Amino acid sequence: MLNTRFIILVLGLLLVVEGVFMLLSAGVSLLYGEYDLPYHLISAAICIALGGTASALLWKAPKNIGKREGYLIVALVWVVFSFFGLLPFYLSGAIPSYTDAFFETISGFTTTGSSILNDIEALPHGLLFWRSLIQWLGGMGIIVLSLAILPVLGVGGMQMFIAEVPGPAPDKLHPRITETAKRLYGIYVLFTISEAILLVIGGMTPFDAICHSFTTMATGGYSTKQASVAYFSSPYIQYVIILFMFIAGANFTLSYSVLRGKLKKVIKDEEFQAYTGIIIGVSVLVAAVLYFTEGHALFEKAWRDGLFQVVSIITTTGYATADYLLWVPFLSIVIFLLMFTGGSAGSTGGGIKIVRIVLLMKNSFFELKRLVHPNAVIPVRYNNRAVNQGIITNVLAFIVIYMMTVGIAMIIMSIMGFDLDTALGAVATSIGNIGPGLGDVGPALNFYEVPAFGKWFLSFLMLIGRLELFTIIVLFSPYFWKE
Amino acid sequence: MLNTRFIILVLGLLLVVEGVFMLLSAGVSLLYGEYDLPYHLISAAICIALGGTASALLWKAPKNIGKREGYLIVALVWVVFSFFGLLPFYLSGAIPSYTDAFFETISGFTTTGSSILNDIEALPHGLLFWRSLIQWLGGMGIIVLSLAILPVLGVGGMQMFIAEVPGPAPDKLHPRITETAKRLYGIYVLFTISEAILLVIGGMTPFDAICHSFTTMATGGYSTKQASVAYFSSPYIQYVIILFMFIAGANFTLSYSVLRGKLKKVIKDEEFQAYTGIIIGVSVLVAAVLYFTEGHALFEKAWRDGLFQVVSIITTTGYATADYLLWVPFLSIVIFLLMFTGGSAGSTGGGIKIVRIVLLMKNSFFELKRLVHPNAVIPVRYNNRAVNQGIITNVLAFIVIYMMTVGIAMIIMSIMGFDLDTALGAVATSIGNIGPGLGDVGPALNFYEVPAFGKWFLSFLMLIGRLELFTIIVLFSPYFWKE
Repeated sequence: MLNTRFIILVLGLLLVVEGVFMLLSAGVSLLYGEYDLPYHLISAAICIALGGTASALLWKAPKNIGKREGYLIVALVWVVFSFFGLLPFYLSGAIPSYTDAFFETISGFTTTGSSILNDIEALPHGLLFWRSLIQWLGGMGIIVLSLAILPVLGVGGMQMFIAEVPGPAPDKLHPRITETAKRLYGIYVLFTISEAILLVIGGMTPFDAICHSFTTMATGGYSTKQASVAYFSSPYIQYVIILFMFIAGANFTLSYSVLRGKLKKVIKDEEFQAYTGIIIGVSVLVAAVLYFTEGHALFEKAWRDGLFQVVSIITTTGYATADYLLWVPFLSIVIFLLMFTGGSAGSTGGGIKIVRIVLLMKNSFFELKRLVHPNAVIPVRYNNRAVNQGIITNVLAFIVIYMMTVGIAMIIMSIMGFDLDTALGAVATSIGNIGPGLGDVGPALNFYEVPAFGKWFLSFLMLIGRLELFTIIVLFSPYFWKE
Repeated sequence: MLNTRFIILVLGLLLVVEGVFMLLSAGVSLLYGEYDLPYHLISAAICIALGGTASALLWKAPKNIGKREGYLIVALVWVVFSFFGLLPFYLSGAIPSYTDAFFETISGFTTTGSSILNDIEALPHGLLFWRSLIQWLGGMGIIVLSLAILPVLGVGGMQMFIAEVPGPAPDKLHPRITETAKRLYGIYVLFTISEAILLVIGGMTPFDAICHSFTTMATGGYSTKQASVAYFSSPYIQYVIILFMFIAGANFTLSYSVLRGKLKKVIKDEEFQAYTGIIIGVSVLVAAVLYFTEGHALFEKAWRDGLFQVVSIITTTGYATADYLLWVPFLSIVIFLLMFTGGSAGSTGGGIKIVRIVLLMKNSFFELKRLVHPNAVIPVRYNNRAVNQGIITNVLAFIVIYMMTVGIAMIIMSIMGFDLDTALGAVATSIGNIGPGLGDVGPALNFYEVPAFGKWFLSFLMLIGRLELFTIIVLFSPYFWKE
């Protein structure tokens, strides 16, 4: 039987956590003396009261949980966080439509970064801070956060961790899951602070620096400016952001190795090699084409524009310093295809993930070998270890389901009258947790004009993408509900 | 060591066969007394002389061949047939550009049906006949043809058959490969004659009826009219063509069962069920939307337009009775996605093939099961048999490589300045051997404006698609050439 009481207990506890974080934005609001203060406080009170009551009532619920509870908690917590996280936007009237507020919030938590706002600068500082903070909270994963700060969850932690961080063969930092979560958060906080300091040194206000550090490290992409990072024309600032997007899109286990001086492990990691190789290769290509087609006076500008957009899309951050839809079709298509690689496993990035691309390339070679030598047993090797055939099938199934979901979702978006570019772009950017799409939802535009049904549907895609498909899809399978 | 002498012997023999078929078009030309007669005769003479000399010189070549010779013969014979098959078009001046003539010919042999002709009716009957005949010859496969008529190939026949007809788990009609080839051709000829008779009854001229029967049964899609099948407004004619496209896109082994009265086997076949289900479901949907959006006076017209376009695309024929790009975006996207299903295995259709889609859907369910019951061993079942995991990996790898090829090819097309729609449409329709694409290469337009490099590249994609990727890609792998 499903342990419903424990599920509600966990959701209640996490709702309290969300309420406490809302108090942080209330503090920012207080500091700037703006009109949104009461709405932060009311929202926090609602979360803490509701969550507190639920968890107090169910405090004694049995703590033993299985796979099914793990999946349900993870799926539900993201939905609950979005439903309550929208309160400051909605109650303050800053986003008057409930649908829009939900879209903006889940786009934040899933670190997608697609927005419906037409005048971001009009928002008070407290709300801008909350908008950045939800990306930061979502970046490393809500469950990972809760494991790091709520030891009570330790018992069923592994089940939830697997459901939230499903990547193929995760490289655990520490056998105890709460230790892993704490270390991941330690690195995450360290990088966020470092970036904020470097941005302030470059001339950003501390407020903008903190907000952008939150959304860089989360590969979220929400900016405090309507023009996104293009607003900050300083090359230094843009290079700092490129560096931290790059770090956030790499495996945090590798960052941990670097911090411990184990550089060799990083350099030898096949996913890191592919990640770096793709970024450098594609950026050089984009920069070269930009230099010759756009008539950039300086190669540095072409290189920076190319590198920024490539890193922003591949890490699924979604910041913009240029509109790739205004580039020649060749470059827009290159950028579009990058939407399907995603960041590294164990990063805060979304999408298919580089490790899966590497494994599938290797398996394709393997199939070619098998054609010539049908009886040879040649396992796919990754980081010098033979990969279990079950993992290969799983990775291939993941990619195929990903593509099928994109196809079906495209059809659904097209029912609302969108053309192929817009439908495909909106779907690819939502499921990949990126932000900007193609056509009417390109980097210079936003999702305001999408009909309400479309916004709810894209929100669902963001969630599916953030939890790497299976965690959500399994809930709709009959096997899941069979005892 | 590679048995080069046998490879050349086979290519020589098949070139003679091609030359003999050219004499058929010469006959048509003679019948109509048109200017193209000498060019058919010269072309035939070149093929027969060259092929005859080569095979006479190498007649005593050892007949034992392995996998590698099989792959090489299959890949080369399609290229050789196209290089010589273009002669009548090129020598007669009907297609003055060599690139265009090659494109038109390989698009014919691979049964793609993309054309560069702007005024098809201007061609003499002999050339129109040759243009239809090459599709018919390519439809069932050149190697299958050769196995049916050249018993000398019997020894290495199996190797070549596997390389040309790679579909997962082919259901052999007969243990002896030449018997299988003969039976397949028997059914193919029977259906072609039946369709021609039914079309003549419907009022088509015998010439148009034969040409359209050739290109229907091959799922090729070349028409003798610039307006394609839309020229023949008779509903009867359109329904006859729909019926035979449907038959040609189904597994010929199943047609053989029907002819022997074994209807049950057909009805129980999972691929056939999916094939029929998709066609009916999507056609009803398209018809309903067309009826309400296009203001069709009659539902019958909407139904016929929907059904015709759906069957034409899913079977990869590519005939048109309506321009799906003028439909609402929702419908164009549905049609576009159908370009990725393809016909059935063992049909003359191209694309991914329904059986692969069925297997991947089943495997996806299987992965969901595994999430909940990680230790259960639950094999994927197809037609009541457990499917070997190796086949599943192969199918998944096939689909992933297919999609990657589409992505890379899209980039290459976009270098030539095509927008996303046109690049994606041209690539999808070429690799799927369909014919019409999207954007500037939609059903109402053609490939004349594509630059020369693009035409060679798309020709290569058609060949890759026709031989189901691996047969061509393996030639570029180092394993293939290692002793």
